[in-house]
Amino acid sequence: MSTYRTLRREDSHGVAVIHFNNPPINLVDRALLVDLIALTKALEADQDIRVVIFRSDHPDFFLAHYDLAGEVGGKPRPLPEGMASPLSTLLTRISRLPQVTIGELQGRARGAGSEFLLALDMRFASRERGLLGQPEAAVGLLPGAGGTVRLAQLLGRARALEVCLGCHDFDAELAERYGWINRALPDAELPAFVDALARRIAGFPASSITHVKAVVNKVTEPDPQALIEESQRFVGNMYSDETLKRVAWMVEQTNKSGSTMEMNMGPLLDRYPAEI
Amino acid sequence: MSTYRTLRREDSHGVAVIHFNNPPINLVDRALLVDLIALTKALEADQDIRVVIFRSDHPDFFLAHYDLAGEVGGKPRPLPEGMASPLSTLLTRISRLPQVTIGELQGRARGAGSEFLLALDMRFASRERGLLGQPEAAVGLLPGAGGTVRLAQLLGRARALEVCLGCHDFDAELAERYGWINRALPDAELPAFVDALARRIAGFPASSITHVKAVVNKVTEPDPQALIEESQRFVGNMYSDETLKRVAWMVEQTNKSGSTMEMNMGPLLDRYPAEI
Amino acid sequence: MSTYRTLRREDSHGVAVIHFNNPPINLVDRALLVDLIALTKALEADQDIRVVIFRSDHPDFFLAHYDLAGEVGGKPRPLPEGMASPLSTLLTRISRLPQVTIGELQGRARGAGSEFLLALDMRFASRERGLLGQPEAAVGLLPGAGGTVRLAQLLGRARALEVCLGCHDFDAELAERYGWINRALPDAELPAFVDALARRIAGFPASSITHVKAVVNKVTEPDPQALIEESQRFVGNMYSDETLKRVAWMVEQTNKSGSTMEMNMGPLLDRYPAEI
Repeated sequence: MSTYRTLRREDSHGVAVIHFNNPPINLVDRALLVDLIALTKALEADQDIRVVIFRSDHPDFFLAHYDLAGEVGGKPRPLPEGMASPLSTLLTRISRLPQVTIGELQGRARGAGSEFLLALDMRFASRERGLLGQPEAAVGLLPGAGGTVRLAQLLGRARALEVCLGCHDFDAELAERYGWINRALPDAELPAFVDALARRIAGFPASSITHVKAVVNKVTEPDPQALIEESQRFVGNMYSDETLKRVAWMVEQTNKSGSTMEMNMGPLLDRYPAEI
Repeated sequence: MSTYRTLRREDSHGVAVIHFNNPPINLVDRALLVDLIALTKALEADQDIRVVIFRSDHPDFFLAHYDLAGEVGGKPRPLPEGMASPLSTLLTRISRLPQVTIGELQGRARGAGSEFLLALDMRFASRERGLLGQPEAAVGLLPGAGGTVRLAQLLGRARALEVCLGCHDFDAELAERYGWINRALPDAELPAFVDALARRIAGFPASSITHVKAVVNKVTEPDPQALIEESQRFVGNMYSDETLKRVAWMVEQTNKSGSTMEMNMGPLLDRYPAEI
Repeated sequence: MSTYRTLRREDSHGVAVIHFNNPPINLVDRALLVDLIALTKALEADQDIRVVIFRSDHPDFFLAHYDLAGEVGGKPRPLPEGMASPLSTLLTRISRLPQVTIGELQGRARGAGSEFLLALDMRFASRERGLLGQPEAAVGLLPGAGGTVRLAQLLGRARALEVCLGCHDFDAELAERYGWINRALPDAELPAFVDALARRIAGFPASSITHVKAVVNKVTEPDPQALIEESQRFVGNMYSDETLKRVAWMVEQTNKSGSTMEMNMGPLLDRYPAEI
């Protein structure tokens, strides 16, 4: 357990609870990705754990978003033709875990944070504090780790286009109406609800999970070609002048204003190139 | 008409109303299946009836669930490779009837009862009394008569997994939000609403039904391979020790406690192996 | 701009606003189709406009429906085998425009008016005044310009069958619950909401629109064979005796009663052959 730097794992009665803890805002950065890869590998080989809950130790951020700061001024890393990006591939692996995976959203999950949730089996959010967003289009990109594809499948064409192009923050109630999450629940009830659901499923025979996930996956498996195209478009556009300029602005606002930009990214995204 | 033992059929103005009446709880048992097969055959050849309503004479049960009692201690009946189960095949036939089929849910529809509703063209439920559940995972199985596949198509991956793995009872309001039913309606208005819709459609030219169903079916037809895999997994796991033990427990609780287990199956499913 | 007879176009900051204005009820007639074709061609070649809003100058009608009056007594125009109808093909072209297209629904959109909205990228409706309907089945037809296919994809099998076979008027609130529109908004807020969303998207880099639409389209593209079958069934049945008689009745009621039939088409459709 102590091998993780950005998360904490607690196992009990067939349920593993993963607490994200990557201060200051649970950024999806290199350290967190290293941990997620190790966790995924461990879960793939785990025969005892049947259900995995993902929650956050941070009251305001589940997973803030992907750490784009490293890309500004960084060297472009081209993606081989015909391949999905490493992050997209990791999320596909997570979506195929033998366990049932449940996301518990209290706080913000934007960009790759939302895409991580979309790769899980179920998602429940705090009615008062859950917030989802895909801000990629504001910098010339698209959700590139499976998010565009999974949103299109789950929400349908019109709502997926609104989410991915409008880049607004969605509260839990609206996210439920759109199908982005299973359900919005009162903040005070959410952890107990998720714990009870996880323990209940872990108490049923293991074969159920195998059977149900196999058939549901067969019906809802994302088109691998669409995932590849999504990745290729993301990486292919990541190092364009326009995108790098917009990303630099976002990074600068984030650094300068402390948490204002991170807390209210949705409403502020269209202020470019103003100082926040 | 008098050939049916578990249901009653009334035809009027192009609408057939089927009343389920298989005391004590409208179990999907051998007698009811014999009647459903005969009814399906009759409807397939019927040129006069354009709309079929399914409702229940029992205030608490639309169709309780499949009669698993017969499987405990019974001889395993293997399913030939590459085939869907007889029940799954029957529900596929029902989903392809030339008539418009409407389910009116007052009371409980669990397991095969819910899967029957999912094979119909439309489903409306009583806001106060409608209750849906897929309890199969609690005994190591999955909805095996098309339910897993149709729920995955209709509700999307996350909600279908929650329904099939959590095994909770869903009231009509939540079932509507998830897309399991068309709509939840006040109990007092439900029969009149369904009757009016049926009569209205039956008064439109017959060609409409043929055209609309053909095109909607073409777009939403379940993958036959997924239906086969679902059946194979169900039957292949039905006679495992774990499943037979759990089914035996359920049957015992049902017999012993009278209606407690049947009335409140959702909340009680995770009590195994306790006495209810 | 002055080339259009039934609509008005205003461009500003990368957003084109199209106002439908085809008195008395914004019928989808020959004049409007000529304009829509010209507009589509212009937008396909337009590199400056990124977002297109469609709204109506008429308080009660967005687009009433297709002008069927011309078909009564007219000469049947057969559709070559293996082809979608001209209107269906036009709506497919509109769904593939390089711009983001947003429908703002205040008033009625029935038949081809609803199908037009379904071909757009997003649809927002007035909670108080938005009304959608597919009345085709009442005259023996089906929505034939992509509506049956797109409704089946977006709403799922059961709700699409209810919409297409029941032929009821759906208010905005119910249309939102069914997924027919993105969202119902208070009438007073709707235009400002749509304008703000359009301007926001138009202020993001153009590459975002290309990337997001390409991937979402890849995932949600309607099956071309289903669109063809839909058209073929529509045109193949259009000139049957039963349909021509019913259409003649509708046209007559519309002419005679002034706006009663057009205002309340949903509830009145099952009165055939009565005088309204």
